[in-house]
Amino acid sequence: MNAAPLGFFDSGVGGLTVVRAVQELLPAEDIVYLGDTARLPYGSKSPETIRQFADEDSRFLISRGVKAIVVACNTATAHALPGLREKYRLPILGVIDAGVDAALANPDAGRIGIIATRGTIRSHAYQHALALRRTGLIIHATAAPLLVPLVEEDWIDHPATEVVLRTYLDPLVERGIDTLMLACTHYPLLIPVLRKLLPADVSLIDSATTCAEHLQRELARLDLLAPGDREGGLEIHLTDLSEEFEALARRFLKKAPGRIHRAVLGS
Amino acid sequence: MNAAPLGFFDSGVGGLTVVRAVQELLPAEDIVYLGDTARLPYGSKSPETIRQFADEDSRFLISRGVKAIVVACNTATAHALPGLREKYRLPILGVIDAGVDAALANPDAGRIGIIATRGTIRSHAYQHALALRRTGLIIHATAAPLLVPLVEEDWIDHPATEVVLRTYLDPLVERGIDTLMLACTHYPLLIPVLRKLLPADVSLIDSATTCAEHLQRELARLDLLAPGDREGGLEIHLTDLSEEFEALARRFLKKAPGRIHRAVLGS
Repeated sequence: MNAAPLGFFDSGVGGLTVVRAVQELLPAEDIVYLGDTARLPYGSKSPETIRQFADEDSRFLISRGVKAIVVACNTATAHALPGLREKYRLPILGVIDAGVDAALANPDAGRIGIIATRGTIRSHAYQHALALRRTGLIIHATAAPLLVPLVEEDWIDHPATEVVLRTYLDPLVERGIDTLMLACTHYPLLIPVLRKLLPADVSLIDSATTCAEHLQRELARLDLLAPGDREGGLEIHLTDLSEEFEALARRFLKKAPGRIHRAVLGS
Repeated sequence: MNAAPLGFFDSGVGGLTVVRAVQELLPAEDIVYLGDTARLPYGSKSPETIRQFADEDSRFLISRGVKAIVVACNTATAHALPGLREKYRLPILGVIDAGVDAALANPDAGRIGIIATRGTIRSHAYQHALALRRTGLIIHATAAPLLVPLVEEDWIDHPATEVVLRTYLDPLVERGIDTLMLACTHYPLLIPVLRKLLPADVSLIDSATTCAEHLQRELARLDLLAPGDREGGLEIHLTDLSEEFEALARRFLKKAPGRIHRAVLGS
């Protein structure tokens, strides 16, 4: 048992989809969330820059006394996770392995589509994790950089979003994918539209629920779960505050985020 | 006469549309360009954060010995220009006054549409500058946050861009605008599509050419023009380097950008 908070970081507020899934599964855990909104997005930036930012984010969380860190951002997981694990001694989890395990829990999964930011696709982190676990997979990875701005604009039901999604998805559907990995924490909000556009037999795997289940197993294994007789709190820190981020946080969390603090990161 | 370079900064490479216009008009000037690609975009962030970034950008340029600074970013001009002018002694120009002067050079301009990032629209900088110069104007300002990602993706001719543009422009056209201000340095690349979607009698005013003309007048007035018997060079510094930024820089400049340097900003 360990009552210290869990730390989460993301480039912005997308990682709150992961927090929401974790709160449902592990309601006793206190959570400290850091969104680097002053420097978002990470998805279009270089590996070197993403690693530097992820390091600063981790140090902020460690200074708040967290017992473990969840990198609630696919791009940062893809580029920075191995380096962070080498540098810091507390458990650090990403969103990729959990998603890949969930996709391959289906023994028939063989043709995997991946949509993500350009940074995540470029890293080949998903492709590599998939290939390590099952040979003979056919993998189609597509960078879908316009989806984050469309989700952030709340244009989920706008005709433009369908046009954009068809452009990204049609080539994957033509290649007969049986599984689509939503490899960005913003994408769970697109699931209703994706369900409409994709054949019914394509499985959707999202980062949020799969990461929460993975976290639960890891905390149990390391005896780090919080005592169960309490209700955990959520403390949100953002490097840039604005009305938009607060409204977005509410949409990703599906409830009011409470008071949001301004974080200043050391360099 | 003054042979020192001109300094330009922007959140990314969009400001290169201004550089291109300046190179055409003032080919003898040396130019140092800083794009804060590690922290782009500025348009969705808070005034406080934008002012801090603009200050760091200015200090970088001043440390390179520039004779004047052009804030080649509408959002930074809108929020940071007055503070920068108070703090630093060299001439600092923005992109807003020049565009507003150009729009109102037409004595019949009376119904002005403005499209820009959310930060620029929120600042009311254009609305204020217009209202100061002519009473009785009817101004319709629309935040168009999806246009920057569409331009950066090079989806100028994609059907999604037309759907998005119609969503932003139809309400302006219905209100009978006679002038549309493209109040973001990315938008000049959309001019061919905009011409197709807008009535022929709507004037388009862009930040790039109007700013270049304004700069020429100011440099002449302050006796800061470079000696005319030389060809100026362009030195590009970005806070994050990636293949995309290099490709984008080429599209904004309409020629190869040469070697791009990685800039590290002091804090």
